[in-house]
Order: sequence, then C-alpha cells, then structure tokens
Amino acid sequence: MENKYFNFELIKTCKQSGARLGILHTPHGDIETPCFMPVGTQATVKAMTPRDLKEVDAKIILANTYHLYLRPGHKLVEEAGGLHKFMSWDRPILTDSGGFQVFSLAKMNDIREDGVMFQSILDGSRHFFTPESVMEIEESLGADIIMAFDECAPYPSDHSYAKAAMDRTHRWAERCKKAHKREDQALFGIVQGNMYKDLRIESAKALADMDFIGYGIGGLSVGEPKPVMYEMLEEMMPYMPDNKPHYLMGVGSPDCLVEGVIRGVDMFDCVLQTRIARNGLALTSNGKHMLRNASYAHDFTPIDNECDCYACKNFTRAYIRHLIKANEILASELITMHNIRFTLRLMEQVRQAIREDRLLDFRRELIEKGTI
Amino acid sequence: MENKYFNFELIKTCKQSGARLGILHTPHGDIETPCFMPVGTQATVKAMTPRDLKEVDAKIILANTYHLYLRPGHKLVEEAGGLHKFMSWDRPILTDSGGFQVFSLAKMNDIREDGVMFQSILDGSRHFFTPESVMEIEESLGADIIMAFDECAPYPSDHSYAKAAMDRTHRWAERCKKAHKREDQALFGIVQGNMYKDLRIESAKALADMDFIGYGIGGLSVGEPKPVMYEMLEEMMPYMPDNKPHYLMGVGSPDCLVEGVIRGVDMFDCVLQTRIARNGLALTSNGKHMLRNASYAHDFTPIDNECDCYACKNFTRAYIRHLIKANEILASELITMHNIRFTLRLMEQVRQAIREDRLLDFRRELIEKGTI
Repeated sequence: MENKYFNFELIKTCKQSGARLGILHTPHGDIETPCFMPVGTQATVKAMTPRDLKEVDAKIILANTYHLYLRPGHKLVEEAGGLHKFMSWDRPILTDSGGFQVFSLAKMNDIREDGVMFQSILDGSRHFFTPESVMEIEESLGADIIMAFDECAPYPSDHSYAKAAMDRTHRWAERCKKAHKREDQALFGIVQGNMYKDLRIESAKALADMDFIGYGIGGLSVGEPKPVMYEMLEEMMPYMPDNKPHYLMGVGSPDCLVEGVIRGVDMFDCVLQTRIARNGLALTSNGKHMLRNASYAHDFTPIDNECDCYACKNFTRAYIRHLIKANEILASELITMHNIRFTLRLMEQVRQAIREDRLLDFRRELIEKGTI
Repeated sequence: MENKYFNFELIKTCKQSGARLGILHTPHGDIETPCFMPVGTQATVKAMTPRDLKEVDAKIILANTYHLYLRPGHKLVEEAGGLHKFMSWDRPILTDSGGFQVFSLAKMNDIREDGVMFQSILDGSRHFFTPESVMEIEESLGADIIMAFDECAPYPSDHSYAKAAMDRTHRWAERCKKAHKREDQALFGIVQGNMYKDLRIESAKALADMDFIGYGIGGLSVGEPKPVMYEMLEEMMPYMPDNKPHYLMGVGSPDCLVEGVIRGVDMFDCVLQTRIARNGLALTSNGKHMLRNASYAHDFTPIDNECDCYACKNFTRAYIRHLIKANEILASELITMHNIRFTLRLMEQVRQAIREDRLLDFRRELIEKGTI
C-alpha cells in the first residue's frame, strides 16, 4: 500500500512465529508495528497529559467518533483546527467509526439499510448515523486513520444474522469509500463475520477486493472465549492482504497482544490499561496487582521493578495504595501512566523478539514469568 | 534567626510599602519570601505530580498532620523514610499541627488543658492530640518546618473565650518547644487572639519571648471580613520579630496575598488554588473564569494569555471546557497546574516589586487589570 500520505512497509516476518514487523508512515509520523494504541475516548487519554503520553512513548492514540460527535461535536473540533490541535497531540490519531458504540452503548438503536438510528447516552436525543455522515464526522475530526462504518453483530449471533450484518458492513464499506474525500486520511475497512469461519473468510476477501489502505478486524473480543477469537484470526489471516496493516479492534490485554501478533495482527487498541488503572489495578511483569489491597500497605517497592516509567522510578506501592485509599487523583495518573508504559514496553519487546526470530520463545518466557 | 539547619535572611524592605524580601534556608533548599505554599493535604498536591510542581516552580509545599496521622498513619510515613521520600518531593515541606483541623473538621471535640479529644472524619474513632503527641507525629512525618499545636478559636468568639484559647495556645507552645527534639526541623509558634487587637498584640509578644525559629499567624480568614483580618495584621506586626519569618496560615487568594505581603507577611498557604481548579474555576490576570460556562465553548484562547504554564501554552479554554463537561481528570490537572503557577508567578512579581520599591504601584496595577 502506498500513496502520497500513507505507506505500510513490511520489514520482516518472524521466522519462528510468522509475526510481522513493519512501519506505518502517516502524515503525523511513523509507527512501528506491531503497535498498541492507548484510547483517548473523549479527546484525552484519561488522566494523561499529551507530554506524559510522549514520555511513555505512545506513537499513536485512538479517539472515539461516537463520543466526540455527541460532545463537544465534530464541528467544534473542526473549528478548533481538528483533533490534533484541539487536544494538543501532534502524533498520529485513529478514530473509530462509532459503529461499535451505536450497537453497544445506545439505549436503543434501529438498524436500517441506510444507517442506524440511535439514542444519545448523554441525553437520550435521537441521532442517525449513515456511512456518509460518519465519513463527514471523521473528516471533521481529522484523524490520520479513520474507520469505515460497520455493523458489529453481538455474540452469540446465529449464522444468518451474522451474515446479514456482514453483508451490510460490506455495502457500507463501499459507501464509505465513495463518500470519503480527504486524501490525508487513511480509510480502513472492517472485517466482520462474528464467530463463523466461513463468514470471516468471505469478509476478508470481500474487503481485500475493495483495496482499503488498511483493515480493521471488528466484532472480536465481544464475549467469546479467547480460543475462539484466536481461531477466527487464524482462519481469516491468510485472506488479509499482506501489504496492508491488520488492526484488531478493541483488544489489548497482555496475553491477547502477544497471541494476536503471533497470528499476524499489526495494530491493537484497548481501554483496559486506563480503565483498570482508575480502579487501582496495575499490569506488571509478574501479573496484575490490585494496589488497593492491604497487602501493599508497607510495600516500599515500585509497581513493577522492571518498568522504566516515572511512576515506577519515583513512587512505591505503599504510597500509591495510600493515594488510592485517600481517593487522590494522582493514583489514577500514576497507575495509568504505568499501565500504558508497561504495554508499550511489552510491544517494544515483542518487536525485538520478531527482529530476532524468537517470538515463540519470548511468549514462553512471558508465561513463565507470569506476565501473560 | 540562625542555626545549623535554618536561617532567615531579610534581604530588604520595600521603601514604598514596608513589605519584606527574604530567603529562608532549610535542609531541603532555599525559599525566597514572600512565598506561597501549595497544599498537599494527603501527601499529594491534588492532581499534581511532584515534577509538575517543580515545573511551576513550587519551592515548598504544605502537608496536613491531622490527615496523615489518620491515614496512612505517621508511623507508616516514618517507615517509608519520611514525607519527602514517601511522596517523592525533595524540596522543603511544612506540616501544620492539626490544631485547626481538630476544631474545624472533627465531628466532636473535647478541649482539655492536656490536649484535645476528637473523632476521626474517616471512621468516627476517638483520638487524643496533645502538644507532645503532635510533636511526635510531626517528627515522624519529618517536614522541614513544623507548627506548634494551637487552639484556634472560632469567629466570632467573645473576648474571654478568645483569651482563654490564646493563653492555652501559649502554654501548649511552651510544651511543644520542650517536647520537640529534631534539630533539622524548624518549629514555628502560632500567634492567636481572634479578632481582638489587644490579644493579637499580647500573643505576638508572648510568642516572641519564646524565641521560635518562625511564627505562624493563626485564626485569621475564619469568616471575618477581610478588612478585619488586615487590621489584625497591622496591629500585631510591630510586635512580631523582624528577623523571623511570618507565616499567615490558610490565606492565599490573590488579593489577600498582596495585602498580606504589604502588611509584613512572608509565607502563605491556601487550598483555594487547587480546590477551585477541580470545580473548573481558573485564576487569571484579569480575574476568575468559570471555564465550565457555555461562553467558553468556542474560546480558542489559553486560560490566561499572560501565563507561562504548560496548560496555557498548549490548550484552549474550549478544550478545557470540553474536559470539564466530559468529567475528564485532565481538566483538574490542567487548571490546578495553571492556578498554582498563576499564584507562584504573582508572588515572583510581588518579590520583584519589593526589590524595586514599588509594591504599592504594583498593587494598583493589579487592581486596574482586575487581577485582584
């Protein structure tokens, strides 16, 4: 894939695992893949300043079209000069299409061939998203990478429902492609097909034919067991274009990141890191730690001995536990910072393991240490 | 005043206003006075990392003995290596004595000659503070400057009640002096006397005789009109030792800072800056702005055009309003950072005006601009 603004370079594949190492070039900078994208739903990665995000070395972040459309409104963001300027983030941004949110968050929704009628989570007001309106919204927001409007079937869905949703997703993908005008934005299509191998393969092929700049893999991690998700990835991946980035949407627990990369995924996003941080839960090289627990009251060691983040270099678990118990905002700031850095560092190590053709060995080491 | 660990250098007095310019030397660094101390009640200045605090150039912060005694406990802080290490702040810290809190926050309190029985705001449990126990707690916390345990009479109080509280404060000050052992901590006495000139003068004289390293002025800004507070300061200041720092406790709105300095105050602390920030209220060079208001929705200018803080250099009022409306933590972080920087910069300007013997002119300029 190549155009004036975007280019995905496939650097190599891991001889041991088949995982891919690449670089995605965008108007706001290059992203080494496989990569993890912290989520900034409302034009802010919760509790993090943009400079904190740069310090933990986030190369790209995600923002949510559904939320920003409702508040503050895409026209206001456009008036501000686009998302980058609005939130003071000069590195790449990806916006989703709201497709997942109108199905998962809305109080009601009414799916039609033309689009989806849904009620706002903020005030119950009614709104109508079509592929064309979503393209307009995403153009106003101005992210580097934007996602096509899709229909995400719930899990479980029967085959006929899943197929109908997939077929509509394909028709909507065509309409998005036609409606989208900004050349400085890469439009990604989204593969659907629920937990049916035949549909996943059909969807991967259909989307490949449309020649998008990149591909989202939607409708996974929606309640199905992890082995089912892994199986879907394995089945569909041979039909995903090699020369385009593969983005597994909404997936990002440490184990899923490694397993996803091994199955050919290049990009991930997840709210897990930031959400659990605000509950006091830290990801570490030897597993999750609920820092709220009394067992950490006198623990004067860092969140994670192996981590190089500001929180780990300057504060103890005992202090952070105190902050959590005292309902102090700094607890969320420090644990969020750590959880994101932990994940980005894990991805750095994953890329290094691919470079050295030893990703399966690295996975085994992670399992032995209790990291995943 | 001089000892191995502390020294207050009076650099000059403003020829126009009589305000004082000084340097307070402490074991953790020097503090130019007049100074403002951000408040870190629970061993964290709410929403700020220590490095953010250094960036806005806070030279000293305050922590609250009452809160830290209750949670996480002074013994845990001592075990952590003291407050500086616990919260990762290597500049000076001042702890108050809990005197104000046991009277203002406690569900009940029982004042005896020996000390005060009070109920915890956290769980209703009963605790007893004496001058001796408070010295022990403050020694465990390990701040550079610690305050004597005092009785703060409410406003209004009749003369006999105010005198009884003042007399007890003096007896407790003697007991604190006797009980306090750590030479690397400067113990400050606290002048009381409610809104009675004769008592304020009597208290200033009595405390001066005890030869403390510095002096707190307590029991002001407790509900009285500002002119009454200013009058008290004017009456008592001639009896406060010139060669010791004068610390007006719990006072720090922009106008009170300037008026206090003009009346001979060297140090201030206040929760205003951080508390109002979390409600969306910003202090600026042309007055307060409630950034939550709809009038800022399309305001693409910084919080304060004259400010040099990270928030003002990178974000607009429109963005910050969006964060407030969306209940995002970053709103509190940015406005807190700004309000503290605004106040510290105001104090820098106040010191410069003293240096140039033009503090009254500077006050007039601030009033004309609407800053105070």
